[in-house]
Amino acid sequence: MNQQAAITSAAQRAIAALFPSDRISADLPDRIAYSRDLWPRTLIGLREGQHRPFEPDTVVWPVSLDELRALIEVSIEHRFALIPFGGGSGVCGGAVAQNGGVIVDLKRLDQITQLCDVNLLADVQAGIIGQTLEDQLNVRGLTLGHFPSSIRCSTLGGWLATRSAGQCSSRYGKIEDMVDSVGFIDGTARYRRVDRANNRQQLEAIIGSEGVFGFITDATMRLAHLPQTRMFLAYRVPSVERGCEALRRILQAGLRPAVLRLYDELDTLLSSPAGDRSPSALSRATHALTHGGAGKALQNRLLSTALRKAGNLSRIGANLADRLRRGCLMIVGVEGDRALAEAEAAYCHEQIICCEGDRLDDEIGISWFENRYGVSFKMSPLFMANAFVDTMEVAAPWHKLMRVYRDVHQALSADALVLAHFSHAYTDGCSIYFTFVSRGSDRTGAQALYDRLWQSALAAADTAGAAVSHHHGIGLAKAEFMKAEHGHGMTTLRALKTVFDPHGIMNPGKLGL
Amino acid sequence: MNQQAAITSAAQRAIAALFPSDRISADLPDRIAYSRDLWPRTLIGLREGQHRPFEPDTVVWPVSLDELRALIEVSIEHRFALIPFGGGSGVCGGAVAQNGGVIVDLKRLDQITQLCDVNLLADVQAGIIGQTLEDQLNVRGLTLGHFPSSIRCSTLGGWLATRSAGQCSSRYGKIEDMVDSVGFIDGTARYRRVDRANNRQQLEAIIGSEGVFGFITDATMRLAHLPQTRMFLAYRVPSVERGCEALRRILQAGLRPAVLRLYDELDTLLSSPAGDRSPSALSRATHALTHGGAGKALQNRLLSTALRKAGNLSRIGANLADRLRRGCLMIVGVEGDRALAEAEAAYCHEQIICCEGDRLDDEIGISWFENRYGVSFKMSPLFMANAFVDTMEVAAPWHKLMRVYRDVHQALSADALVLAHFSHAYTDGCSIYFTFVSRGSDRTGAQALYDRLWQSALAAADTAGAAVSHHHGIGLAKAEFMKAEHGHGMTTLRALKTVFDPHGIMNPGKLGL
Repeated sequence: MNQQAAITSAAQRAIAALFPSDRISADLPDRIAYSRDLWPRTLIGLREGQHRPFEPDTVVWPVSLDELRALIEVSIEHRFALIPFGGGSGVCGGAVAQNGGVIVDLKRLDQITQLCDVNLLADVQAGIIGQTLEDQLNVRGLTLGHFPSSIRCSTLGGWLATRSAGQCSSRYGKIEDMVDSVGFIDGTARYRRVDRANNRQQLEAIIGSEGVFGFITDATMRLAHLPQTRMFLAYRVPSVERGCEALRRILQAGLRPAVLRLYDELDTLLSSPAGDRSPSALSRATHALTHGGAGKALQNRLLSTALRKAGNLSRIGANLADRLRRGCLMIVGVEGDRALAEAEAAYCHEQIICCEGDRLDDEIGISWFENRYGVSFKMSPLFMANAFVDTMEVAAPWHKLMRVYRDVHQALSADALVLAHFSHAYTDGCSIYFTFVSRGSDRTGAQALYDRLWQSALAAADTAGAAVSHHHGIGLAKAEFMKAEHGHGMTTLRALKTVFDPHGIMNPGKLGL
Repeated sequence: MNQQAAITSAAQRAIAALFPSDRISADLPDRIAYSRDLWPRTLIGLREGQHRPFEPDTVVWPVSLDELRALIEVSIEHRFALIPFGGGSGVCGGAVAQNGGVIVDLKRLDQITQLCDVNLLADVQAGIIGQTLEDQLNVRGLTLGHFPSSIRCSTLGGWLATRSAGQCSSRYGKIEDMVDSVGFIDGTARYRRVDRANNRQQLEAIIGSEGVFGFITDATMRLAHLPQTRMFLAYRVPSVERGCEALRRILQAGLRPAVLRLYDELDTLLSSPAGDRSPSALSRATHALTHGGAGKALQNRLLSTALRKAGNLSRIGANLADRLRRGCLMIVGVEGDRALAEAEAAYCHEQIICCEGDRLDDEIGISWFENRYGVSFKMSPLFMANAFVDTMEVAAPWHKLMRVYRDVHQALSADALVLAHFSHAYTDGCSIYFTFVSRGSDRTGAQALYDRLWQSALAAADTAGAAVSHHHGIGLAKAEFMKAEHGHGMTTLRALKTVFDPHGIMNPGKLGL
């Protein structure tokens, strides 16, 4: 328990006066449930006996802006922290009560309040779960175009607060490109409507602010029509270098296919669709990538070996890589008007072939699409097996990308099994999404190892010229690194903090503030 | 002369010590030359005897960041204003010395210091003239993709400071979409490098800040390859309503053709390529749009009538419109990979035909392309003829667009001839670019009329739900409207001002600060 500044009983009474009893709780089970998000560090801690790492004093579930404003006023009067909470799927500790305070779960604010098919805009409350929003749009023939793998357990507000990126970001952009305006209640209880057209500077200050300035309560989002056509292509390229070359060529030619993903050798092996429930063509293609038929069995052996023998992971990974037929899986997805999508696919094909790619069966791409959200739900078995897994997304310009890839890989792989994919590419650079699996040598050593891995990986990323976050945000996990990276730029954030949250009640400790 | 706060002679000596004599001037011709930009209000004033509307004390031409920093330090010590000056082509009075001070002409900082064809990035100093930059990129097979009509008389720094938009914005974005990082010296003489990837909030605060926070000294810009193919299509649509419907359909289908322009009836008439020097097919097509052959002669008559008879402009315009064959010109330009460009053109064609468009000869589009920068150089004859012309660019969501068009048109047309085109479209809305021509009833009445026209037009735009600027910026011209539009949002700008320019030396009075 890090709790230092407990709420006074006078404050508790003032909060209790604002909410009916079924929308406020100071019960222990709720305080435990809301004492973490999906930051793996706290999940490791849970195993090590830290059941309430960031215990809040109270949890509330507001249903209106009036309730939020009233809560802020009480918070100012009694000086306690308010922590906006969406789906709780963040992996950086951005939605936890570092020193007590009130968790404000916004999931009851979950309505699409207006939908305009002339402007292709939807007014949406911030607490809506992503998949719920997408489902409701789909029945109208529309889509937001935002598909993070957490879509079933994250909210619109969380996406906006962290500058989220989805799996179709090449075509639809990141979440900040989709937002037309936000409704925002700052730390003085003032509601403002902030527009892209009228007030871009303020909009960009609020997006990505992780709750440190106030509550994003709703947003007007740009939509798209559901695509007429959707096609997937799959390739094997000989190396990440050649695959990245293909990504770069496609982006720099001005194309924006919906999906562009490149997996490194090990991620190719572990992410390949399981052979046992797939049609034979897919199965054959998968096996062609994964050592002539070992497929699922090899995946399982690799993981179980990784779990048994921490400390030797680097050697295990290297041995396995040697035993694998070399090659990296690349998925291309195009969508929209059929003729345009086909022209786009043809152009991508040509570039990938130029980079020594071999076309695989399209069903590999289709299978990727069908299982595209699986990754967010694969963590628990590893944690239960006493290991841990985390992901780290950095970004770098093309000419530094391979150095970042190698250096971060090396920094991690002494003590972890490391895989990576490249899934958000731009004309001038690309992000790298590392996944690393490890475990401490004993029951209590895992958290220390975890910290060491992050320290050395982020230091390697920084030295190699990468930005330390692409779309997971900063939270507590990267706060110190952000300060180092931003340097004097933190003064800007602090000045904005003074304007929006002069009393310092909003989500203290996050973003390095 | 609005000058109130002249520079002390001690300050003058301190500035003079920083620059060699050929890069500093307090001579009267220079003070006159730099006492205005292209804000039409000051051009009208010139005719009315206001030769030095915003007279600076001194003009300097720095060649290095060290000189800029030293100048800022002197400015802080002696408390005088610094006004960043690029090409001087701004139309809102953003680059003038409202109350004396030093004009800092940055055009000697005009080098491409690095060009990386792996990342497609160029490091460019802020004072480079747009066309010079584009020419230097073109010889390397590259382009910035930014083509404002002022490209021959505006600078990169000016573009960034005003969130400029070019004629191919649908494909390449506005200038803010092309910038990877900026080099910036704030009002405390501190240089910072501000990145999109690391520090988006600060980057977005600096872009569009019109010099009130400091000097944009250089920028790393995203480039594109010169297109393999470029094609133009031209159409006549029956009305702006139907034309806007076509624009909306194209954008909302996810397309981004490089050029999409729709001219209203009168702008169609006046902007149509001249018949006298064009091949016959073009000539015939132009005439089909403009009253069966009257073409150029009609343009001339319209303008000369407009100039002779102020006060009756509304009736003249209406009469002429009646006499014209109704119809609006629409230009579509696609570029890039040939197969993709052709598919894109085919899709656009289909949508425009659905909106009752008739295909015209392609040469109309080609002719538009050849004369695309002409508009910025057509103002002088009108001013010499005792009239004035100005442009006003607003933006609105699609469902409010026709109301904005009609209301602003009506607000202006009692006292001006009004034309408009639609040239920057988005999925959720579009900008309208009004041009209005008028003159006062006597030699001294024009400026008062000009002010009245702006007042009523901006009020109409605001009431109808438009944003009062799309890409010309705010400067002095729209400062009061911006305050009204922003409301409490101005506190954010003021907080940033305190961080970046605590001494208040940077371009005072602009952006409402």
